[in-house]
Amino acid sequence: MRVRESELIHKIEKALGRRLHASQNVRLGIGDDAALFRPRPGHELILTCDWFLEGTHFLRDKHPPDSVGWKCLARALSDVAAMGGTPRCFLLSLALPTSHTGRWLDEFLAGLRRASRKFRCVLAGGDTTRRESILINVTVVGEVRSGHAIRRLGAQDGDFICVSGQLGEAALGLRVLEDSKHAISSRDARLRKHLYPEPRLALGQWLAEKRLASSMIDISDGFSTDLRHLCPAPHRGALLAPDWFPAVQVPARLRTKIGNPLDLALHGGDDYELLFSVSREKFPLLPLIFRGLKISSIGYVTTGPNLVWDPNDPKHQILRSGGWDPFQKTR
Amino acid sequence: MRVRESELIHKIEKALGRRLHASQNVRLGIGDDAALFRPRPGHELILTCDWFLEGTHFLRDKHPPDSVGWKCLARALSDVAAMGGTPRCFLLSLALPTSHTGRWLDEFLAGLRRASRKFRCVLAGGDTTRRESILINVTVVGEVRSGHAIRRLGAQDGDFICVSGQLGEAALGLRVLEDSKHAISSRDARLRKHLYPEPRLALGQWLAEKRLASSMIDISDGFSTDLRHLCPAPHRGALLAPDWFPAVQVPARLRTKIGNPLDLALHGGDDYELLFSVSREKFPLLPLIFRGLKISSIGYVTTGPNLVWDPNDPKHQILRSGGWDPFQKTR
Repeated sequence: MRVRESELIHKIEKALGRRLHASQNVRLGIGDDAALFRPRPGHELILTCDWFLEGTHFLRDKHPPDSVGWKCLARALSDVAAMGGTPRCFLLSLALPTSHTGRWLDEFLAGLRRASRKFRCVLAGGDTTRRESILINVTVVGEVRSGHAIRRLGAQDGDFICVSGQLGEAALGLRVLEDSKHAISSRDARLRKHLYPEPRLALGQWLAEKRLASSMIDISDGFSTDLRHLCPAPHRGALLAPDWFPAVQVPARLRTKIGNPLDLALHGGDDYELLFSVSREKFPLLPLIFRGLKISSIGYVTTGPNLVWDPNDPKHQILRSGGWDPFQKTR
Repeated sequence: MRVRESELIHKIEKALGRRLHASQNVRLGIGDDAALFRPRPGHELILTCDWFLEGTHFLRDKHPPDSVGWKCLARALSDVAAMGGTPRCFLLSLALPTSHTGRWLDEFLAGLRRASRKFRCVLAGGDTTRRESILINVTVVGEVRSGHAIRRLGAQDGDFICVSGQLGEAALGLRVLEDSKHAISSRDARLRKHLYPEPRLALGQWLAEKRLASSMIDISDGFSTDLRHLCPAPHRGALLAPDWFPAVQVPARLRTKIGNPLDLALHGGDDYELLFSVSREKFPLLPLIFRGLKISSIGYVTTGPNLVWDPNDPKHQILRSGGWDPFQKTR
């Protein structure tokens, strides 16, 4: 079956609708040379883009297309959350085999639409082409009050290090998925966070609005790698408290297959939780639970250079970056 | 040779510099979760993204890496030109094989840097990953005075249809390149427009500022396809004047190989010239040459539905869209 590029664009346009466009200040959606967007006065724009590639970030035969649609947007939105911003609109670059312009595309667009509506981020434009592998690139434009964006750098000696949610859940889901022989059900609870991650937008916005965080990053490559960005050597390090670390719970019957849950939590990627630092003065303002989301304080920033896993351990174990690096891994 | 992702990012950052950042209101470049950009008051943003993929848009063994770098940005900038906008910054998504993180990447970045400087569009961020094929996606953010952007739709019955430059030059270059057995020299004049297209930013900005054009598009897929976007059936059509049509000149010795120059001009893509409509009242304000760039008026808009190639021809030949459609072509 052959399809015209214009039909494909029409299908995308129809699925993603334009209902929110007026409220988001997006004046012009798909079908022109470019999109037009009117920024709010007193705000800065947040710009971020993310690859989402078959074989690297998802598997055509294992991942439900609806999860591919959700996740390609959600992970880009997580970068906006990590700056404390509010998403406005996104651009979708999509390369597809002709065989995937029918039902696969419909389900993909359904997942993308759900994420677009939930996080109030409208499709503003994009680019489509044909390709044997499924290639996706998403650019998100967000906004933040001028001067309120939270950067990666800014953590000071003595600041508490905090993290939202539980770590390792997404990696656990990925192991379950890799272990299954068939396409998996998108309703499997263990896979929820791997398939449908939730960018922590409300928490990020709240931290930015209240100016509570001195630095912030989202955990996408894995805690051990992303903490290094927050506390870069040689001038910053961290002392961490294993007892407070919110590692995923792994059911006993999965333990032998999946190994140490702490490894998943420390080095597994894709959690999209927020990792941030808070000064000692402001720390009392931080709740233990923010709108149902657990906040754990897991240690504090030092003058570096090491990330010390357990200061009470006589071996003084140092945490090495073991997260995701596409140029190091052979996956 | 293995390379870390952080080294790759450092290389990109070093090559693309930050000299222009302050003047472009880009507060934060690479190395954070996202980029921050401060829009100018009274302006709207133009957002556009473009694939540039090995095998589809360029060939690894034939196209000089420096041309790949130049062109991936230039073609996205052409969409900004087509709205009458001024480029500000761009995001680069790059997927590379490890083998191409050395010299190929250096030359690619040199071409990208030249385009970035020439068109004053700074690198604000991006995403990198490893892949067997070279995949590129570029998002450009531009600005235009609020309400001044020129859209695709807006051409009125009787408006003159105008085009910049010569058409078919890029397609001629592609044929020469396809015909050559080896990697080709980036200095071959016949290849200039195919390898190093120039987005018509100054012309677009001038037309927007003076409010001269009633509609505009850039010719990326081919004149016959792009004119249809400007004059969509069934309510818009065009009468075209072959004598005024600025078709590429093809040297006699290449004629047999390359065929009819008019076919290249009508259906060849990649020219990145501007195609626009101008009302009869404003037409006298349009120069024949704008800063060295020829402007041809090649016909006028009708109430449709056909694009009539030569009204004086008794056969009343209708121009069919024969430009680039990735889902129709087998290339």
